[in-house]
This record gives sequence, C-alpha cells and structure tokens, in this order.
Amino acid sequence: MLKARVEIRLKKGVVDPEGKNVKKALNLLHFTEVKNVRVAKIFEIEMEITDEEKARERIDAMCRRLLANPVINDYKIEIIREND
Amino acid sequence: MLKARVEIRLKKGVVDPEGKNVKKALNLLHFTEVKNVRVAKIFEIEMEITDEEKARERIDAMCRRLLANPVINDYKIEIIREND
Repeated sequence: MLKARVEIRLKKGVVDPEGKNVKKALNLLHFTEVKNVRVAKIFEIEMEITDEEKARERIDAMCRRLLANPVINDYKIEIIREND
Repeated sequence: MLKARVEIRLKKGVVDPEGKNVKKALNLLHFTEVKNVRVAKIFEIEMEITDEEKARERIDAMCRRLLANPVINDYKIEIIREND
C-alpha cells in the first residue's frame, strides 16, 4: 500500500476565476495586501501497489483519463510511503 | 512581496464525498488498485508584505474569516519567498 499526492493546477497564463473571486473577497474583508490568488487541487490517493515506478505510471494514466484536463492543467505526482 | 501556500483539507474522520466519487470513477475506469481518495485545496496567495511572521498571522486570519471552515477543516500555511 502506498500513498500518492497529485497536485493539479491551472497552467501559467490560464485565467483562474475562482482565485480572482477569492482575492476580491479577501480585499473586501480588508485584507488589502493580497494582490493575487490562485487555486490548486490535491488528490491523495491510496493504492494497493508496491512498486513506486509502476504507481507513478498508473497515476499518470489517471491524470490523463480523469483527474486533469491537459489543455488547461499541469500536474505533479509525489509518492509517499505509507510508513512516512 | 511574498507568496504563501495554504493547504486546506478535511479533518481526519470527516467524510469526503468528492474523494469517494473520484475513487469510484477511477475504479470504474479499471484503476482497481485505488483504495481511497481524499481531496484537498491549495490557495497560493501573493501578498504585499515583507515580514514573514506578520504574513503568517494575516493568513491565519484569512483562513478563519473566509478560506477554511474550522468545524471540518485543518489548514497548513507555508511561506515562500518570491525569489525562490
């Protein structure tokens, strides 16, 4: 069993409407020092697999099939051993 | 100007319906090795502030006021210098 962390973010240059709205809301709450906000998502995946290389390949396939949109997203896979 | 990363996740024991659905979808796509998925969110905040301690305090206030729900969320603040 191992755990993976997949971080999915918008590519540089892609507009982030959610981030823009969070920024606006923070400014309205008098957090005027906030100049920009961008939002990203993390999936923590527990897998019944032991080989790290294999796990990375499988997660890459999951990103391409379901988790990420290759047109607008970049993603980063990090493998964490369960006994960490 | 500094950048902060705020990671907001569900507390341990809080049910994660989005994660459960992602797991189900991955299983249906024949990623049967996936046993559990949990979802978290990251806000990357650029702030016009130089003092790191002060920034941390302000972000803590933002989490309490807007970004996190203290009943169900834990959050973690990480300060990143812009020249990193």
